[in-house]
Amino acid sequence: MSKEVEAMPVSIPTLQEKARRLRIHCLRSTTEAGSGHPSSCLSAADLASVIFFREMRFDPLDPKSPVNDRFVLSKGHAAPLLYAAYAEAGVLDPQQLLTLRRLDSALEGHPTPRFPWADVATGSLGQGVSVALGNALAARIDGLPYDTYALLGDGECAEGAVWEAAAVAGYYKMSNLYAVVDVNGLGQSQRTMDEFHVERFAERFRAFGWYALTVDGHNYSDLVEAFDRCRAEAGHKPRAVVAKTLKGKGVSLLENQEGWHGKPVPKADLEKALAELARPIASDGFQPNPRIRPDAHAPAATPSIELRSARKQGDSAATREAYGEALAKLVKADPRVFVLDGDTKNSTFSEKVLKANPERFLEMFIAEQNMVGVAMGLAARGKTPFVSTFAAFLTRACDQIRMAGVSGSNIKLCGSHCGVSIGEDGPSQMGSEDIAMFRPIPTCVILYPADAVSAERLVAEAARREGMCYIRTTRPKTPVLYSTEESFPIGGSKVVRRSPKDQVAVVAAGITLFEALKAADALEQEGIAVRVIDAYSVKPIDGATLIAAARETNGRMIVAEDHYIEGGLGDAVLNAVGDQARVVKLAITEVPRSGPPEALLDRYGISSRHIADAARRLIRK
Amino acid sequence: MSKEVEAMPVSIPTLQEKARRLRIHCLRSTTEAGSGHPSSCLSAADLASVIFFREMRFDPLDPKSPVNDRFVLSKGHAAPLLYAAYAEAGVLDPQQLLTLRRLDSALEGHPTPRFPWADVATGSLGQGVSVALGNALAARIDGLPYDTYALLGDGECAEGAVWEAAAVAGYYKMSNLYAVVDVNGLGQSQRTMDEFHVERFAERFRAFGWYALTVDGHNYSDLVEAFDRCRAEAGHKPRAVVAKTLKGKGVSLLENQEGWHGKPVPKADLEKALAELARPIASDGFQPNPRIRPDAHAPAATPSIELRSARKQGDSAATREAYGEALAKLVKADPRVFVLDGDTKNSTFSEKVLKANPERFLEMFIAEQNMVGVAMGLAARGKTPFVSTFAAFLTRACDQIRMAGVSGSNIKLCGSHCGVSIGEDGPSQMGSEDIAMFRPIPTCVILYPADAVSAERLVAEAARREGMCYIRTTRPKTPVLYSTEESFPIGGSKVVRRSPKDQVAVVAAGITLFEALKAADALEQEGIAVRVIDAYSVKPIDGATLIAAARETNGRMIVAEDHYIEGGLGDAVLNAVGDQARVVKLAITEVPRSGPPEALLDRYGISSRHIADAARRLIRK
Repeated sequence: MSKEVEAMPVSIPTLQEKARRLRIHCLRSTTEAGSGHPSSCLSAADLASVIFFREMRFDPLDPKSPVNDRFVLSKGHAAPLLYAAYAEAGVLDPQQLLTLRRLDSALEGHPTPRFPWADVATGSLGQGVSVALGNALAARIDGLPYDTYALLGDGECAEGAVWEAAAVAGYYKMSNLYAVVDVNGLGQSQRTMDEFHVERFAERFRAFGWYALTVDGHNYSDLVEAFDRCRAEAGHKPRAVVAKTLKGKGVSLLENQEGWHGKPVPKADLEKALAELARPIASDGFQPNPRIRPDAHAPAATPSIELRSARKQGDSAATREAYGEALAKLVKADPRVFVLDGDTKNSTFSEKVLKANPERFLEMFIAEQNMVGVAMGLAARGKTPFVSTFAAFLTRACDQIRMAGVSGSNIKLCGSHCGVSIGEDGPSQMGSEDIAMFRPIPTCVILYPADAVSAERLVAEAARREGMCYIRTTRPKTPVLYSTEESFPIGGSKVVRRSPKDQVAVVAAGITLFEALKAADALEQEGIAVRVIDAYSVKPIDGATLIAAARETNGRMIVAEDHYIEGGLGDAVLNAVGDQARVVKLAITEVPRSGPPEALLDRYGISSRHIADAARRLIRK
Repeated sequence: MSKEVEAMPVSIPTLQEKARRLRIHCLRSTTEAGSGHPSSCLSAADLASVIFFREMRFDPLDPKSPVNDRFVLSKGHAAPLLYAAYAEAGVLDPQQLLTLRRLDSALEGHPTPRFPWADVATGSLGQGVSVALGNALAARIDGLPYDTYALLGDGECAEGAVWEAAAVAGYYKMSNLYAVVDVNGLGQSQRTMDEFHVERFAERFRAFGWYALTVDGHNYSDLVEAFDRCRAEAGHKPRAVVAKTLKGKGVSLLENQEGWHGKPVPKADLEKALAELARPIASDGFQPNPRIRPDAHAPAATPSIELRSARKQGDSAATREAYGEALAKLVKADPRVFVLDGDTKNSTFSEKVLKANPERFLEMFIAEQNMVGVAMGLAARGKTPFVSTFAAFLTRACDQIRMAGVSGSNIKLCGSHCGVSIGEDGPSQMGSEDIAMFRPIPTCVILYPADAVSAERLVAEAARREGMCYIRTTRPKTPVLYSTEESFPIGGSKVVRRSPKDQVAVVAAGITLFEALKAADALEQEGIAVRVIDAYSVKPIDGATLIAAARETNGRMIVAEDHYIEGGLGDAVLNAVGDQARVVKLAITEVPRSGPPEALLDRYGISSRHIADAARRLIRK
């Protein structure tokens, strides 16, 4: 597919010269900024030089080229080194490096995609290998020849997410994935757990199925040989190069000294520090070595898919099952869609994709942090990943979800088994804080279907929209409420029941919508007309419909939701209606117990009985 | 300290008989409940028999005895096995087992502390080793002779949290900690990543500094020998027994069959299944073997500590620094307080404890999930752990925090570096969704001091209160506002500025309180009187003061907070005032950038200028 142009191998003096320049850039830019982590850059400068200027192939003028080798700076606090490397590759004017950390510079304190060469934001440690694994999986899926390199610190290897990624990468034999660990032995506040025991790191990677070598991270012939050996000997295994380094290497003020984490060289000391790096090592004979872009086209943009359920009104089906049915159709319609699950596929129903199109399904096992990180890596390579597990277990990946938000990642997440309606499995399995977790993520859409028809339509909406979407599904079956003709735009709602005489409005979503309808039936017997609104789009919420309902019911509004009372649909409604309504929130207010779903809905105050009582009380006031 | 009574070693036939009964209980109780995970219980029944009836020593009548060996069921879905083991130990009437999963039974689908022998809730996989490590650390701290056993599934070993705990346990040479891994090779939806490769698990534990053995998990002489070898050979290392087992072992309908995860034997098949377990193996000669309780008393209840800052009004100090100062005083006053940090102690200022009382400080390295799990384990043994890291990185432990909520754990968490006011480090380091994460946790208190005096007082309040507390601290220095005489009760607030002519109320906390005061100064020049409220207790919030302010300002209220606009202080205020005020929320609405703190406060709409503008607009309406 791609004709490769082999450049001359880059000489070691050239690599050393590049590293010298990287060090100078890192010192200058952080001193100019008055903050930053130069000592963490200097330990990795030689590693970065070898990775960027000998190992990687990429087109400096085309960050989005599908055949560029990928680089993920897992130790995101070494951002100045990342920017310096791209400057030395010819991507940036080195003068730009001095804008580091300024309010309107793309060169932020830790990388974000505002810097176009950073696919995702890093800086929350231990997440980079997952993202790199996502990149590597995308390469395999697309049959593209690029490799992915993640540069890690030693301290961050204490994060379990690193070993989640290591295990899955080993399992899938990702020979196009390199993890380079910068073992400088010094954390932020003290020596790291493993100090300079590089062999321990290598043993851990090996125990998870990797080929791993240890190396002196400042010795170029060692480093060059290590990468060459990886290519020659690692076979199908992912490759780890564990490098013993010195924090602050190259500048005696900082070198292997405690107390310099996250501190720039003071202005007064800068010239003295730079003097140690003043002598050029070689003329800069480096030429970047890009691959030729393949002729193959990127997959076409998403066709305008309108998933229509085969379910009929009056049928009964779980929204989680409809989610699986929708995914199975979606992967056939949109070549970019891939489905990931954490060994819950028979509960989330993502297994419908595995059964029909196994090549579009990625089992990620019980490791939710890595699953979300991999999705970020896939999304960065143009895929539309759908991640499914129990809503409760997405909380395991809260930090990765947060970072996906910072990254503007186009990932879709589905949390099944929300709230007390799951029943007997008990509180550890109930996702009762998931909406609260997703609501603050900027631009994240939250969709919460009540029936199978809307569930299918909302999966299509999520796929169509660029950006993070969260879909919340329910364990028990619910009646099919809508005709297959109805549409469910993001930001909309459905007024399921209305009359000119409505005295109170009940806003619900998911399982509580049916409780609201039952309550409305009961109240109708008493001559009380109730408006019932299906708030299937929790974020953005349909403020106009809610405000209209408030006005037309004399400000009497009830929100019933299968979620803790803080941070969920109730708060979204409260924000939308402001002082236009007296909102009564019915939601879970204590840690629930095991029990039958209906009994739990009643015990925790969100059954039809409680909704009807709340309505009566509001009207009586 | 404790005189130990050595019972006769329990014979293998007795252990086998116990396992037979455990299997019967698990089958009966799950079939009666109509749900549950009997096949996951049966694989581990022999392991549980050896652990409970040969290895552990505990007083069946005294779950809280400080010298009981501890057991953590990390694979929480095997809850019926846990309950059955305690029934066979004489703790429960076996008839009670048939109440499994009923609404008012303490025998929930997954264990919670409603069952008094479960210190913490489990069921979100991969968390048990951390909790067990916390127990083991407590034993070491207290010089008590008990051991802690965690029973894990193989599938959950994909969770990174397991390896975080393994690394820290290896580092601290926790020889009183046992991890027993039930390798039944079958996950929920397919074969596990490592199937029956027990040696891989052992290699991983070894790579993290453990002594590890593999064993046939149904062979009693192997099992007995494995534990004996651990005691003889492991030395200072924590110990892992990795057992090859068969899911559903002992009942041919289930044994090593896929498709039986989380499914009880149908009623119609139960008698046939039980028939395979009908023949008694031995008479039940088991006698529990408790340790004698030590004479030593548990640490006294918390003295009523009132931490008073040495800071004076007009001084300037960061609340994070005051937090550290308060902790340093607290550990001297309260013997139960221990302080954990994730290699950020020089930023959170928890290092003040390390410097003054190193024996009360536990470095947990960059592994936040494990840090919170360890805190849960410490709290279960009567300690009051304070966990500190950046607020952003507490999101890494969201699931553990959720489970601490389910467990009712008495843990205290401090998140430093909240919001955009951290400045140049950028969005990955800003905790801007932490309040949203903590608010839904039932009974969790959220405290957000604005100055050093209130920070110290609130640390004392958090220590005094039983239950989870979250304290949010700020990076930059802020002026000292309060006199050391003032008190800051949980659920209270401070009206920092008021007059009979107030036209608008501004509610703020932390850094925005000072922006609010600046805005009030500016507005005063224009003849506009402003009430300013310090909502230092975000949950519970001081509804009465807020409603009074709303009434006295004609319903004009502004909330300014350094947090995303969803789920934070603004939503808490909105819930408190309902339709009594038109609340204008000023908060972060997009992913922030790097930049100077003041510039960021202004750019994201929460500076004094924006507060004053919002006030003018409200008044003009």
